[in-house]
Amino acid sequence: MELTVEPIDIGTERPVVLLNCADAETLGVHSLDRVEIDWDGTTEVGIVKVTDELVAAGRIGASHGFPEITDGTVVAVTPAGQPESVESIRRKLDGRELDSDELGAIVADIEADRLSDLELSAYVCASHANGLSLEETKQLTERMAEVGKQLSWEQPVVADKHSIGGVAGNRVTPVVVAIVAAAGLTIPKTSSRAVTSPAGTADTMEVFCPVEFSREEIRDIVTETGGCLVWGGAVDLSPVDDKVIRAQRPLSLDPPGQVIASVLSKKQSAGSSHIVVDIPYGAGAKVTSLSEARDLADDFRRVGDHLGLTIECALTRGSDPIGHGIGPVLEARDVLAVLEGEGPEPLRIKSLRLADIIFDMAREAGMPVDDRSAADILDSGAALSKFRDIVAVQGGDPDVSRDDLQPGDRTETVTADTDGLVVDVDNQAVSQLARRAGAPNDHGAGVVIHRRTGDKAVAGDVLYTIHAESSDRLEAAREYAAGDEIVRVGGRDEALVERR
Amino acid sequence: MELTVEPIDIGTERPVVLLNCADAETLGVHSLDRVEIDWDGTTEVGIVKVTDELVAAGRIGASHGFPEITDGTVVAVTPAGQPESVESIRRKLDGRELDSDELGAIVADIEADRLSDLELSAYVCASHANGLSLEETKQLTERMAEVGKQLSWEQPVVADKHSIGGVAGNRVTPVVVAIVAAAGLTIPKTSSRAVTSPAGTADTMEVFCPVEFSREEIRDIVTETGGCLVWGGAVDLSPVDDKVIRAQRPLSLDPPGQVIASVLSKKQSAGSSHIVVDIPYGAGAKVTSLSEARDLADDFRRVGDHLGLTIECALTRGSDPIGHGIGPVLEARDVLAVLEGEGPEPLRIKSLRLADIIFDMAREAGMPVDDRSAADILDSGAALSKFRDIVAVQGGDPDVSRDDLQPGDRTETVTADTDGLVVDVDNQAVSQLARRAGAPNDHGAGVVIHRRTGDKAVAGDVLYTIHAESSDRLEAAREYAAGDEIVRVGGRDEALVERR
Repeated sequence: MELTVEPIDIGTERPVVLLNCADAETLGVHSLDRVEIDWDGTTEVGIVKVTDELVAAGRIGASHGFPEITDGTVVAVTPAGQPESVESIRRKLDGRELDSDELGAIVADIEADRLSDLELSAYVCASHANGLSLEETKQLTERMAEVGKQLSWEQPVVADKHSIGGVAGNRVTPVVVAIVAAAGLTIPKTSSRAVTSPAGTADTMEVFCPVEFSREEIRDIVTETGGCLVWGGAVDLSPVDDKVIRAQRPLSLDPPGQVIASVLSKKQSAGSSHIVVDIPYGAGAKVTSLSEARDLADDFRRVGDHLGLTIECALTRGSDPIGHGIGPVLEARDVLAVLEGEGPEPLRIKSLRLADIIFDMAREAGMPVDDRSAADILDSGAALSKFRDIVAVQGGDPDVSRDDLQPGDRTETVTADTDGLVVDVDNQAVSQLARRAGAPNDHGAGVVIHRRTGDKAVAGDVLYTIHAESSDRLEAAREYAAGDEIVRVGGRDEALVERR
Repeated sequence: MELTVEPIDIGTERPVVLLNCADAETLGVHSLDRVEIDWDGTTEVGIVKVTDELVAAGRIGASHGFPEITDGTVVAVTPAGQPESVESIRRKLDGRELDSDELGAIVADIEADRLSDLELSAYVCASHANGLSLEETKQLTERMAEVGKQLSWEQPVVADKHSIGGVAGNRVTPVVVAIVAAAGLTIPKTSSRAVTSPAGTADTMEVFCPVEFSREEIRDIVTETGGCLVWGGAVDLSPVDDKVIRAQRPLSLDPPGQVIASVLSKKQSAGSSHIVVDIPYGAGAKVTSLSEARDLADDFRRVGDHLGLTIECALTRGSDPIGHGIGPVLEARDVLAVLEGEGPEPLRIKSLRLADIIFDMAREAGMPVDDRSAADILDSGAALSKFRDIVAVQGGDPDVSRDDLQPGDRTETVTADTDGLVVDVDNQAVSQLARRAGAPNDHGAGVVIHRRTGDKAVAGDVLYTIHAESSDRLEAAREYAAGDEIVRVGGRDEALVERR
């Protein structure tokens, strides 16, 4: 059937073609079926939506994201079958192991948006329900890296760091990058923005300077300073990963094999060679037990070996927030404070440990590394100075001070209503609270934790402060805080928490 | 945030609301997030799509299928969380058993289109990967029936019949209904249209007469004739089932528990009390082995007991097509031939067996039933006469003859290229072939099988004929037939089929 193309905006994130119901019936296709579109020697496959008003008979609508076909082009449209990868997804759902070709086809079809949401969800559900074997994880990681844009470096050791997340205020990255670059190593760090958390490293860094750069610009920044702190989303290191994450989000799926493939495909594309992976574990973190964390660490190393990457994992406490502040500006303040030799002790210590692991790896690889410890480099002021260099080269103000970083001025303090010991700070609840207050969209919104697990508190002591940029948001956060116990003080009546 | 409503057609089958990207950012919502919409004391929840052109800032687009809000209404829009049922779906994916409340919430959310495709797919994948327990199946069936529109009857025995499908040319239903109604029993049969097959019973019946009726009209038809042969889709007996089937289709998922819930929720809503379930098994059918068929039959009866339904299952051969013709008109001819005392023997025999089972059930329930066998009723001409009555009351021509039922006149015959025995007729390939030829949209398109498994064939004998209504379709079918072995003749060189 010959149809005339018109571009159309139907607010979808995924490319589709729209057919009038009359044409769809003639072609014998339904919504979510596929059609092949041929014109000028080019062939594309599109997922169909059927409409009775938006596109007239004789025309075909091409949504945003669909490969550009000029308005008015006449194309030949024929029904097309499902991609073969759907058969592989079904096999995975039936508990079979997929081979490299099958995983490659799935990755290619996800990358080219050839799978419908129903099919894509089946893939993430199958990987979750039946798990990915080590061999599958290796193959998947390799295939995912292959479809990403590549960065490459001359240095024999290119350091990198990744945290698998789930812990509030875990903003060690800027500190680690500053220390490692100050020691003369190369560390081209790409980070994510928040998806479900109150701030990603990219959101926090954006408080200091721009974070969106092309691959060429990143190369220049790293050449000049040895490091960078940029948003990875702009450089398409693992385009499939973003699409998989979108499909995993509604059900909060995050199967270990997919986590490894997600992280290491990006590191592989980024040209990193020596990577420290931070695996926080504990109640409220993504990984809950030490044994689970150990298994994940072993698999990270095995998949790294397969790809020729040197990997060390740091198993860290994930049950408490790391910094005091949660939210872009509040975390930026903590980062600057630590670089200036002050700030939250857990954030300082954790950053030092991760940097020291990178130093060990680099020395083992025979690299000449500053022979001082991470602590010495930090305390010497070299890391602060390196951080200011990076901020300057990325277009920010190198003389930024903590006073410049003001959180939202609508505040609410929450106090202890009993004497006792802080027995729990609920990571997930803190993150939710900061989001209700407006983070990450409102950079100044968030939460400051004044008492940590193990601290003593007497009735009336401030446990945490909520910051918001608008009264509406403050009210929403206040409401959320009232319904949950964000910082829990264990009093004398601990056995009975509440009667109702 | 206050926004002004405008109705919008974006060709989606599922209700969504469109927000301008500026408003979405202010609200902090992404595509697939949900918003609560309040106006005039009414509250609805909508799944969000974000657009930069289609809907202006300050406005909100309501797609087809979204509950009617008048154009221009100003509504209050706030971010809303996920339905709780998503948490239950996650639990099911993790291998946990769901209770009645959880299944009820999932059913309610599917019915009200509150789940995105990603979430809906996760539900069908979870039921497939981890299976539904007998208890879950009972609860699910009950919940699915509850949200359907109900039919009710005064008769103590209301007979019904269902085939779980997968077999080409299995058009026993019109024959069974005619025999059972001729015996004085009530059998209000609702059937489906083809989804992936070349013809559903509703498609075949449409060759004789209209099949879309309201519940009141169905009641009148059944009161007058004792039976009906109508399309079930028009009366919403199990609205959730249609939505689940749509989500299962891309991966051809059909887990046993969901099959039982699908069938029995409809039968429960239809007010049926005594049901024969046809379970064809064998290579190419949905159920492949006898033991699997027995397990399914046992579960059908157990779930039936729970609902107060009397169920008998007929385990039947599913490896070969039943009638000669496949496709609406061709199957209609077979049906009429059998009712006239001729036609394909397997179709006649199978129809008689199913009708006799219904007679046995009715007699056991103490109903006065015609004491003749199904064969006697058929051979007496009473079933043919009853069938013509039903066709007439449904608005068709009661004097229809086989000569009136002409298949597509573009034909292609395929012959045996060796002497031997027919060792296999590939059900799925026959169905695919009939679809390529244009069935079910082209009523006259399809395939006629001239040789069945066990028949002798000599080289040059016609094995099957393809019928199409257009040369394009005939060509598409011919191409498909050339690539596969639809009817397989085992010759003397059987050990080696092909060298390549």
